[in-house]
Amino acid sequence: MYGPIIPQKTSVKTPTSLFSRRATALPAAPSEPKGAHAIAFDSGHAFPGILPDMTEAAERALTQYRSETLQYGARPGLMEMREWVVQYLEADGARISAQEVLMTNGAKHGIELICRLLLDEGDTIVVTAPTYLTSLPLFRSFGAGFIEVGQDDEGIDIDAIEESIAWLKQSGRKLPKFIYDVPDFHNPTGITMSRRRRQALVELAMRHGIFIVEDSPYRQIRFEGETEPSLKSIDSNEFVLSVGTFSKLLAPGLRVGWVVAPRDFIRRMALLKSDGGSSPLLQRMVLEFCKDGGVDQHTRLARSTYHKHRDRMVRAVRRDLAEAEMTVPHGGYYLWLTLPQHIDGDELAQRAMDNGVSIYPGSAFYAGQNDSYPRNKVPLKNNIRLNYSHATPDEIDEGVRRIAAAYDAISPKADAARDKAWAVRSA
Amino acid sequence: MYGPIIPQKTSVKTPTSLFSRRATALPAAPSEPKGAHAIAFDSGHAFPGILPDMTEAAERALTQYRSETLQYGARPGLMEMREWVVQYLEADGARISAQEVLMTNGAKHGIELICRLLLDEGDTIVVTAPTYLTSLPLFRSFGAGFIEVGQDDEGIDIDAIEESIAWLKQSGRKLPKFIYDVPDFHNPTGITMSRRRRQALVELAMRHGIFIVEDSPYRQIRFEGETEPSLKSIDSNEFVLSVGTFSKLLAPGLRVGWVVAPRDFIRRMALLKSDGGSSPLLQRMVLEFCKDGGVDQHTRLARSTYHKHRDRMVRAVRRDLAEAEMTVPHGGYYLWLTLPQHIDGDELAQRAMDNGVSIYPGSAFYAGQNDSYPRNKVPLKNNIRLNYSHATPDEIDEGVRRIAAAYDAISPKADAARDKAWAVRSA
Repeated sequence: MYGPIIPQKTSVKTPTSLFSRRATALPAAPSEPKGAHAIAFDSGHAFPGILPDMTEAAERALTQYRSETLQYGARPGLMEMREWVVQYLEADGARISAQEVLMTNGAKHGIELICRLLLDEGDTIVVTAPTYLTSLPLFRSFGAGFIEVGQDDEGIDIDAIEESIAWLKQSGRKLPKFIYDVPDFHNPTGITMSRRRRQALVELAMRHGIFIVEDSPYRQIRFEGETEPSLKSIDSNEFVLSVGTFSKLLAPGLRVGWVVAPRDFIRRMALLKSDGGSSPLLQRMVLEFCKDGGVDQHTRLARSTYHKHRDRMVRAVRRDLAEAEMTVPHGGYYLWLTLPQHIDGDELAQRAMDNGVSIYPGSAFYAGQNDSYPRNKVPLKNNIRLNYSHATPDEIDEGVRRIAAAYDAISPKADAARDKAWAVRSA
Repeated sequence: MYGPIIPQKTSVKTPTSLFSRRATALPAAPSEPKGAHAIAFDSGHAFPGILPDMTEAAERALTQYRSETLQYGARPGLMEMREWVVQYLEADGARISAQEVLMTNGAKHGIELICRLLLDEGDTIVVTAPTYLTSLPLFRSFGAGFIEVGQDDEGIDIDAIEESIAWLKQSGRKLPKFIYDVPDFHNPTGITMSRRRRQALVELAMRHGIFIVEDSPYRQIRFEGETEPSLKSIDSNEFVLSVGTFSKLLAPGLRVGWVVAPRDFIRRMALLKSDGGSSPLLQRMVLEFCKDGGVDQHTRLARSTYHKHRDRMVRAVRRDLAEAEMTVPHGGYYLWLTLPQHIDGDELAQRAMDNGVSIYPGSAFYAGQNDSYPRNKVPLKNNIRLNYSHATPDEIDEGVRRIAAAYDAISPKADAARDKAWAVRSA
């Protein structure tokens, strides 16, 4: 076709100094790959044994709907898909219209679009400490500062938010743009926000003119107890922007999710959706699968499966890691363990990895770093998060055993450190 | 489940004043929907008659690969997919490794990730005037300023870039971060950059430490003439970041594309890929379809189909819009028409729409607005862009006839304005 051009290697280096601030701030080294044969307690993967059979849905999407599914799709999503989401959320107490729904490539993409809509560099947001791990680098990439607040058994600490706001006002600073939270089976703590706390939170947001970003991927994965109303359903003044996903309802690989927000917000987010329309093929596959109650049926299967997995893991922890404290979550994917204070979760996670089980240390879930607000939390060192959705029941037993072995290996050392501290104090 | 909460509507308004600068800058009104029965000369859709049959690929992806395709995928993409891209680009003269490939949700997503990697608010980039319509709001959403340069038959105006750079240096300003261009069958002008211009461009970029973003979705859709080397293939020092897509090779609805860049760039872009891994299901479907030469076979079909479409449209324009000038493109999807100077492309597009055919006026392809650089281009008013990929051959004839009718309707008015101007000048 054309003759060879021999590129001359010169001494010129690609100028990485041209990276944006967000790219420069990224961690320098890639995160360590986990061992290929490790038991994975670190993921949000589905249990492979219950992945749905989507072959028929795909076949219909690619034949009956071929000229829809293989062409560019509308940026806000397929209208039928948006209407399906309306029905689905209506059954959950929210009253919205299809114009208030934007289809996305999963919930994280929804959070990103909310950030694109609301955040300028230097803006702040409120997050719980600890909070959803993966949301942190996303918020950071928008140059956001963090106000970290704690939680109790009823959920996010409203008083702490009020205090922070008062402090910001006093010092003449801008209020946070939004409060980000996972109100149902919080990731990582498993806490579900009480009804009165939800009402107080929505009222607070409205009073101060701050949005709430409600991220509730596990809401339908409830094993027991009463469902609390979604924040969106008690929000009469459109201060709640909610994100949802089929990752936990059907399968993560689909990458289909949504955002619910006021119409004008959705219109703008669609314009800011710079990758164009989300795949119409995946949306149509989901729609075809959902016909005749497919999603409800699969949700029931997920609930009963993960219920058993949770019970298995709780039993294993009580048996092999008896010193760990936990509040057994009523749903979701995770156990949050609080270990004796002298245990360093980072070290425990590293040693567990050496023993062939991957877990996240509690410290990974704190925004930290930012010291410009009075209430920022110092990561607690003595927590770990265990996922029970992905592993088989037998792997759950074996994984907890391996963590217990790692725990035993560092526990004496911690004892020694305590003894030493005691000796110093007594001297 | 829980009792009803009666939301009390108050007078509080959702504070749209909290929007980010990028969201505030968006156009206030939604763009007008085109008539449902209009002949579409405005899209980049595939011809429905050649959409590939992907049912078998989907079936295999959802059965043999179920536990890969329905789970979360790695952020950089499936390794097998990245290796496929390496092979594909190697056949096109580029020597890269899989670590230099990032899978994306289409080429626009690739451009977005490059922006996330490189652009801070207020940075500038070089674009051609006119340039790819859809890239403009994307660049704007990152707060980029534009340096617009023209093109001649050989492609982008290198001297104009040099002049702008000299001017920037003289006035103590930062150099642009990258030069964005569509070197093959440029969108909208159809120009393909000559080989010597390509070499000069890559040398310029290296000399000044500026990146080039090579966006070449139509490269394989060549009807005649010699392929020029890709910018990536003549770039020995990694100043070229290239984006690719299966949208034009297979089908737009798949939303599978890629970026090629140095390893460290890819690693960082993967971290900035805040929607997580692109759908492994779609990637595996593409891989399965590509086995046994599926993509080459489909590309041949697309070439011969669009070749006929182009010929049909060129004939129709010569017959019915004889006053339009054009350089017949050797490939791609678009005809760029230059009409007599007194014709207003915006008005013509509006009237064509009224006649039932949707086209883009030339003015839509200019960054414009920004007056802080000396060379920014005033949009030329007398151009329109016609797409020939989507419509049937008969619709192509009918669509051009309708445009010609719209043209005839405004042409006398333009004559009258010219006469009036002449009368004033003579007075």
